[in-house]
Amino acid sequence: KTIAVLPGDGIGKEVAGGAVSVLQAIGERFGHQFTFTYGSIGGGAIDALGTPLPEETIELCKKSDAVLLGAVGGPKWETLPGHLRPEKGLLRIRKELNLYANLRPVSYYAATAENSPLRPEVIEGADMLVVRELTGGLYFGKPSERTKTDGEDAVVDTLFYKKSEIERIIRLAFELAEQRSKKVTSVDKANVLESSRVWRETAEEVAKDFPEVKLEHMLVDNAAMQLIKNPKHFDVLVTENMFGDILSDEASVLTGSLGMLPSASISSDGAHLYEPIHGSAPDIEGKNIANPVAMILSAAMMLRTSFGLEEEATAVEKAVEQVLESGSKTADIAKKGQPTVGTAEMIEEIKATILDNQA
Amino acid sequence: KTIAVLPGDGIGKEVAGGAVSVLQAIGERFGHQFTFTYGSIGGGAIDALGTPLPEETIELCKKSDAVLLGAVGGPKWETLPGHLRPEKGLLRIRKELNLYANLRPVSYYAATAENSPLRPEVIEGADMLVVRELTGGLYFGKPSERTKTDGEDAVVDTLFYKKSEIERIIRLAFELAEQRSKKVTSVDKANVLESSRVWRETAEEVAKDFPEVKLEHMLVDNAAMQLIKNPKHFDVLVTENMFGDILSDEASVLTGSLGMLPSASISSDGAHLYEPIHGSAPDIEGKNIANPVAMILSAAMMLRTSFGLEEEATAVEKAVEQVLESGSKTADIAKKGQPTVGTAEMIEEIKATILDNQA
Ligand SMILES: CC(C)[C@H](C(=O)O)[C@@H](O)C(=O)O
Ligand SMILES: CC(C)[C@H](C(=O)O)[C@@H](O)C(=O)O
Repeated sequence: KTIAVLPGDGIGKEVAGGAVSVLQAIGERFGHQFTFTYGSIGGGAIDALGTPLPEETIELCKKSDAVLLGAVGGPKWETLPGHLRPEKGLLRIRKELNLYANLRPVSYYAATAENSPLRPEVIEGADMLVVRELTGGLYFGKPSERTKTDGEDAVVDTLFYKKSEIERIIRLAFELAEQRSKKVTSVDKANVLESSRVWRETAEEVAKDFPEVKLEHMLVDNAAMQLIKNPKHFDVLVTENMFGDILSDEASVLTGSLGMLPSASISSDGAHLYEPIHGSAPDIEGKNIANPVAMILSAAMMLRTSFGLEEEATAVEKAVEQVLESGSKTADIAKKGQPTVGTAEMIEEIKATILDNQA
Repeated sequence: KTIAVLPGDGIGKEVAGGAVSVLQAIGERFGHQFTFTYGSIGGGAIDALGTPLPEETIELCKKSDAVLLGAVGGPKWETLPGHLRPEKGLLRIRKELNLYANLRPVSYYAATAENSPLRPEVIEGADMLVVRELTGGLYFGKPSERTKTDGEDAVVDTLFYKKSEIERIIRLAFELAEQRSKKVTSVDKANVLESSRVWRETAEEVAKDFPEVKLEHMLVDNAAMQLIKNPKHFDVLVTENMFGDILSDEASVLTGSLGMLPSASISSDGAHLYEPIHGSAPDIEGKNIANPVAMILSAAMMLRTSFGLEEEATAVEKAVEQVLESGSKTADIAKKGQPTVGTAEMIEEIKATILDNQA
């Protein structure tokens, strides 16, 4: 299996290294050969090649079986013009690889529950999957420009979807729900937006093909409330790009384990991409304090989703849980006053646990 | 002072009555004469007159000094075609009265803190004001319609703002921040949307006129996280219509007092409108269990904002606090197993307390 590794900026480099060494341990234990090829993206690519997403990187991703991405961005590049910002690299790679769906499982970890801003009884046992449309809507619609009306300055952005794009993501959400608790919450703003009315109708149509899955519709403002009031209500939540950007980030802080949440971006026709939810955290770069777990669990998602290696994926997840339960925690998830371990130690412990667990 | 009262549907009718009788107590205590004229809106108006916002109601509001609105909507009208839905009445009244800004103060109440899904130490002392743009953006932009691209079904909505609309709402936020803790958090998605880039530039320009107020920019996805992780961070949060719809609802559940949160919608050229944040809650209509506090505090906002009656507004707010602290609570905010009071009793107690507090 060939894997493109794009470490990116800031702590992206540290955590990507962690995923690679954990995958090597998996290869060793289960007898697989993974080939890693590195590519540049984000600020580092801007510095070296003058673009946040070089053509070589796109080519590399297209010919790989899966892509692992660290994180991009940092203050150094924030003042550059728009097309030269690190996040443009992110948006472009989504389009180039047709990564139409972003999957973010958010689940409760007993080992980090104390870090949650929510009361334990509210969050305990929560387990949801946020499915966000990733290549349409306000992010890519045209026109997106400054204009004039009656001689006055004005500005316009466009929320555009083909019905087939809506159908594709909703169908994926139903397929994923079939493997989980069989409930889809489709989030829209159908009382205001025409695009949401099409979204809702399409959800009803797709639902007919999945008689075992329960479909409910929820308005986006209500969803923003229910995620906090009653996170256990949700199984699979599916929504369009901008709503998904907001709600998936909201969901990610509920369990107090932001540094532990992985994600997968699903391509319609090629390699899927796996990345942690957290950013490049330039303030802690190189300090050996970043939490590598989100990136390592993203690698586990890759094993399962891209390669069908269920046992191997579970081996990674189990090792992570064991290490956390043994009390080894990076600073972001440790209890106040408790000892912490560094990025490198955490990676080593997870690796060692994977190998130790070999029957 | 002439006040248009639009009770609307569901519990709207019960709570609007509460606001009126509390205002009568204020009139009695402070020697003011308030004239109340009733108008219809929402489902009731559809049933009686075939439209969710009759012309008479618009006329009534335009010639009044302020508008009190209960709540609109219910399952009975949910299957009607779009232009006949109760919420169309809401959207239209915003446009007709030029209600360009929705103000939602969210503050911590010790008396209801146990209802918050957040840990006490996270929410204790939080006190923010969400300022939402209310007559622009995706809600009203054209085109908003089904279309075709390359023979395929598609749909488009439009996020449109005049720069002057952006400037107006940001200026209001700064003015309000001057009277509070002098900090404005302007929320946008400037790394993706052109409208957000104009928003951000405009915020910078307006900030020059308010040297004492600190301006910070926050991306909407980050704001959705920070509201939960660190609600005390915020003083005045200002944002565009759709982001504001989502974030203000998110903010409203943080303190556990949804049934207690008022709002004011500010007109650029006429009567302002005051309404509770909660909906019409048809499931509890007529059961004498709705919490009238949000509506009563909306009336207090009216006294202060539309009539400049600061002392009178404070008298209402103080009475509400005293009643809550005395242990009288409606079911939504009572501790499990504790006795509750009904809507009518709650209103009576607040009224009586206002009169008792007379020196
Ligand atoms: C960096 C930004 C463009 C991006 C997005 O909004 O999609 C990020 O917030 C994310 O969620 O991956
Ligand atoms: C009913 C709906 C159109 C309305 C809105 O989205 O503005 C409501 O959610 C609100 O926030 O007042």
